[in-house]
Amino acid sequence: MRIAVIGAGALGLYYGALLQKSGNDVRFLLRSDYDAIMARGLQVYSPGGNFHLERVQGYRSSAEMGPVDLVLVGLKTFANQYFDELISPLMGDETLVLTLQNGLGNEEALAALFGDERVLGGVAFLCSNRGEPGVLHHMGQGRVLLGEFLTGATVKAERVAEVFRRAGVTCTAVQDLRKARWEKLVWNIPFNGLCALMMKPVDTLLGFEKSRQLVRDVMGEVVSAANAQELTEHITKSFIEEMIRFSDGLGPYRPSMQIDREEGRPLELEAIIGRPLDAGKAKGVQMPRIEALLALLELGEHCRVLG
Amino acid sequence: MRIAVIGAGALGLYYGALLQKSGNDVRFLLRSDYDAIMARGLQVYSPGGNFHLERVQGYRSSAEMGPVDLVLVGLKTFANQYFDELISPLMGDETLVLTLQNGLGNEEALAALFGDERVLGGVAFLCSNRGEPGVLHHMGQGRVLLGEFLTGATVKAERVAEVFRRAGVTCTAVQDLRKARWEKLVWNIPFNGLCALMMKPVDTLLGFEKSRQLVRDVMGEVVSAANAQELTEHITKSFIEEMIRFSDGLGPYRPSMQIDREEGRPLELEAIIGRPLDAGKAKGVQMPRIEALLALLELGEHCRVLG
Repeated sequence: MRIAVIGAGALGLYYGALLQKSGNDVRFLLRSDYDAIMARGLQVYSPGGNFHLERVQGYRSSAEMGPVDLVLVGLKTFANQYFDELISPLMGDETLVLTLQNGLGNEEALAALFGDERVLGGVAFLCSNRGEPGVLHHMGQGRVLLGEFLTGATVKAERVAEVFRRAGVTCTAVQDLRKARWEKLVWNIPFNGLCALMMKPVDTLLGFEKSRQLVRDVMGEVVSAANAQELTEHITKSFIEEMIRFSDGLGPYRPSMQIDREEGRPLELEAIIGRPLDAGKAKGVQMPRIEALLALLELGEHCRVLG
Repeated sequence: MRIAVIGAGALGLYYGALLQKSGNDVRFLLRSDYDAIMARGLQVYSPGGNFHLERVQGYRSSAEMGPVDLVLVGLKTFANQYFDELISPLMGDETLVLTLQNGLGNEEALAALFGDERVLGGVAFLCSNRGEPGVLHHMGQGRVLLGEFLTGATVKAERVAEVFRRAGVTCTAVQDLRKARWEKLVWNIPFNGLCALMMKPVDTLLGFEKSRQLVRDVMGEVVSAANAQELTEHITKSFIEEMIRFSDGLGPYRPSMQIDREEGRPLELEAIIGRPLDAGKAKGVQMPRIEALLALLELGEHCRVLG
């Protein structure tokens, strides 16, 4: 399968590398890593086995990449304004677009440009960070839930999920992508938000009783907002404890938003926190902790931009 | 009047200096500033007029200070465990103890040691910071509301208030000290808490719409908790807008808790945030934003102490 990876960050590089290793024709849109990857290939360190891709098809612009069968979108969501420019040159008659980005609103933006039936969304439970140029550190996890933007349909999602499974990724096609997205938000909002605000990793937050309880309380607000969205089924309270247990296994993991804040880059606040907050409030759900968290992170961004 | 200043920080030094300047016999318990102040006196920079006290009565221990008529307590509240040791040597038959410390629980701790009838509390609306040793910067404000721990009585409070007024301080004796304390908390909790958490001054928080609204929302939680405490009268919602307007005039003021956090010192979390939160929750008032704020500040303290 011809696959274009747009947004070759820690997520795009990881899945792209696995997809290439399992025999697909994978083409990466590269920026700062271009020279390093073209010269030395891509090195992946992973508990599942380290590997090195000697030859990587890297490009500096989408126009050179040609039409593909699948576009894998791993861009930071604040770059979504470039969807048209970056993805249009890759679209053939049957091309599917799969966004594995965080938060809400990504499928909608892609569907508006390329049509509902072309768009799939995926939720990746992945711990990986970029190292030096051309080096990727996979710390663990990697499971993907895939769904079609047109809720209920799964034929295309099944086909893409099979490509991921052949690449060694635990991947399931789901009927209700929105539920999967909200389940991911139950993790993403507290950990991306609080770790970024405090610039402390997951285990630090969980290791202190009051902040551990705050994580739970924030998760509770997300679950309440989710369950007001007419999902196919409710997210149960026990899911919160499941997420806490899962997170206890992550150790000193730094969520992407924490790394972005520590390195002075823009944060994915709108997709990961702002839109879920609006969706909850639109249904009358009170989310005072998340509202406060967003206000403080946006204040930080405001100060960063103003210097 | 013989006055001992225990806790000669920005607050103790400021009021102590004014009380000495107006003719009282003021004795300061000094620590790190001792050598500088004994050698060069105390320099006060103030919009109300700079002045210099050439000779200051400084002491290294309370035992040398002798009994006084009034003990002015300006200690950081996390040093309240030393009340007995620091204040007992100063107590004569008629000595009054006035705490101008922040937060809740200070009068109670003093009353338990020295008797209800000896204890007065005051709420100081003061913007001052210490400079180099022996130098104090008064940025503005300074009004004091005084009350006796035994609610309703004001004879002793009037007598002490008159001493402050003769020193040029706008000072009023109030019947309900608890109401004054809670009114101060309406300012202290959002600004000490949020400025310390974000390490940003007052005008930065107020200059960004979402954090300005968060300040209002936190103030609303404090007002709700206050009005559940059976005060002599309710704090009105308009008091919040009054505090916002007052704060708009403070410019880039750094509340004491922000300075403490920036300089790696312990924070007055228990008196300023913890006890008011407990008092509100004991009356069934929900305070999710303040609870979150406290959890994050305590997490920061936890990490600081663990290094």
